[in-house]
Amino acid sequence: MHDDLGFRRRIDAYLHRLVDEEEAELLRLSSELAPLCVQLRNSLTRGKRMRAAFLYWGWRAAGQPDCDGVIRAAAAMELVHAAACTHDDIIDDSRLRHGAPTAHAAFAGDGAGGWGSGSAEPHDARQERSAALAMMLGDLLMGYAAQVFATCGLPGAYVARTVPLWSTLLRETIAGEFLEVLRTGSTAPEVAESLEVARYKTAKYTVERPLHMGATLGGAPRHVLAAFTAYGLPLGEAFQLRDDLLGTFGDPAETGKSTLDDLRDRKPTTLLAMTLSLLAPDDRLLLEKTLGNPALDESDAALARRLMDDCGARRRIEDMIAERVSAARGALNSTALPMEVRTALGSMATSVADRAL
Amino acid sequence: MHDDLGFRRRIDAYLHRLVDEEEAELLRLSSELAPLCVQLRNSLTRGKRMRAAFLYWGWRAAGQPDCDGVIRAAAAMELVHAAACTHDDIIDDSRLRHGAPTAHAAFAGDGAGGWGSGSAEPHDARQERSAALAMMLGDLLMGYAAQVFATCGLPGAYVARTVPLWSTLLRETIAGEFLEVLRTGSTAPEVAESLEVARYKTAKYTVERPLHMGATLGGAPRHVLAAFTAYGLPLGEAFQLRDDLLGTFGDPAETGKSTLDDLRDRKPTTLLAMTLSLLAPDDRLLLEKTLGNPALDESDAALARRLMDDCGARRRIEDMIAERVSAARGALNSTALPMEVRTALGSMATSVADRAL
Repeated sequence: MHDDLGFRRRIDAYLHRLVDEEEAELLRLSSELAPLCVQLRNSLTRGKRMRAAFLYWGWRAAGQPDCDGVIRAAAAMELVHAAACTHDDIIDDSRLRHGAPTAHAAFAGDGAGGWGSGSAEPHDARQERSAALAMMLGDLLMGYAAQVFATCGLPGAYVARTVPLWSTLLRETIAGEFLEVLRTGSTAPEVAESLEVARYKTAKYTVERPLHMGATLGGAPRHVLAAFTAYGLPLGEAFQLRDDLLGTFGDPAETGKSTLDDLRDRKPTTLLAMTLSLLAPDDRLLLEKTLGNPALDESDAALARRLMDDCGARRRIEDMIAERVSAARGALNSTALPMEVRTALGSMATSVADRAL
Repeated sequence: MHDDLGFRRRIDAYLHRLVDEEEAELLRLSSELAPLCVQLRNSLTRGKRMRAAFLYWGWRAAGQPDCDGVIRAAAAMELVHAAACTHDDIIDDSRLRHGAPTAHAAFAGDGAGGWGSGSAEPHDARQERSAALAMMLGDLLMGYAAQVFATCGLPGAYVARTVPLWSTLLRETIAGEFLEVLRTGSTAPEVAESLEVARYKTAKYTVERPLHMGATLGGAPRHVLAAFTAYGLPLGEAFQLRDDLLGTFGDPAETGKSTLDDLRDRKPTTLLAMTLSLLAPDDRLLLEKTLGNPALDESDAALARRLMDDCGARRRIEDMIAERVSAARGALNSTALPMEVRTALGSMATSVADRAL
């Protein structure tokens, strides 16, 4: 069903309608808000809708029927995600996502016809201003998310019992991000610490909590929630580990992202932690000298990739992904779930962790 | 009632309890989140609770009784405000609020025992990281706001009919901020444009919409909403104009803020727009050369203040404040309101626009 275009098309259709309405409201306030509208649209009209799909299948696992209300509740997850990505991209200064300039990059004039292109403003001032504008776009998206969820149209009692989970999801995600920023660039990352960050900022946020939210909306029993934890945490970790690999070894033409950002920022990924733990002292020094340099280029990246490959770290991360996907699949068999839920989540386990983008 | 300590004490007590609970949740995730908890507490345990008071009096204007539910709904306004201030202070690089370091300043090590103090990290990297950490604190606060509002305990139907206004409030505020950032540092600000920004980012956000939210929660008739617009917009503009004056002419010991920030950022305030429209060409050039300089010091500020004073701009702004407060007071008499609501809003009109801080 996640691969079934019908689901994605319904989420996309809802988000497109929302963007149309919000654009009209914003332009009614001032025509100068047009650049905000453009980025609002960009941020909501792309993506795989994974978090929406997990919420949907959580709902279906509770024995609830397909309906418009759950599509809107699921779309709220995508609004949260668009907000998180917008703020994340500022923090990481990622300038490309889904092959297009990110919001702060577009506000600064990256890409054709960007708002700031051709401006005579000094470079630093423009970057700061663009980051400020993108921060506000993220705030706006987060506001829409809460409203869409609150007014999704499912019975009030269903929504009310799920609100605390919404807070939990935000708290865990922000905690994960906070820990990552706190640790970025500092002492050598540890594998266990990097997995802790992945658990909060990715595994819970992307898989476990959306499933829990759908299941709680639908009134699923405790054992279903427990099965979703057993499925979601390893799968979400696998997703982050795959993301780490793609962030350094991926093909930008396929992933739509730069493969230099993580290295430039010396992001404390599990891939980096594993590499540092495996490298001989000389190579470790060589890698440390290469990373965290804002001017890091393709040849520096090639060196880093070679070191990660040769020491066996890349292979170990692939093994960790395989183990986790297998654990996630096993968890699906640990409890009674409707057959189509089991099938959908089984197929998502494969696509989430083995994806090329 | 706003001056009656009872109301502020109840809002403060609720927010303190919330901080205690959230701190426990965050520390349960990781003890490394302690600096986040410290700033969460700082951001929520100060302030005049004006927005909460306006929501409260909107509710009472609908003939509804004092109760715990409205206190929680009012506290949600303060959570939104704490989030907005946290993000605003990053954008403006304001390092002091209520006499204490702002969140990003504290994360960078401003003030005693700041998290980043004594760090060997390069200055720029530390500032960027601190801004990222503060951005996440703001996101967390915004998440709490939506949850507190959704679960305030007032009847579900009351909350449901008010959710669209919540979105409106966010949209208008963010639009105002966006326009301000878009225009900061660019061509000469116009008085009309600066008042447009003030209307969205302050008048609607601080006065009109909180009153509307309380009134809508309580089910007030349309004429009460209209009276609140007629009261709220001029009063909110007066509030922003007072804020602009205090931002340049205030006593930092009383306002708890720097009086250099607005000038340094060349913030397009009505005070600046009015000054530029009144100055003779030579003085105008002199002022333009002084503003927008990151190294602007106290003697530059003294020059700017003298120019603003001598050309009559400061006086004109004081007149605009007085006119607006008078219009706001007049609006209170234009419709039937319970006596204690009229008294409370009348006294708030004075304190909001004539405040020293």
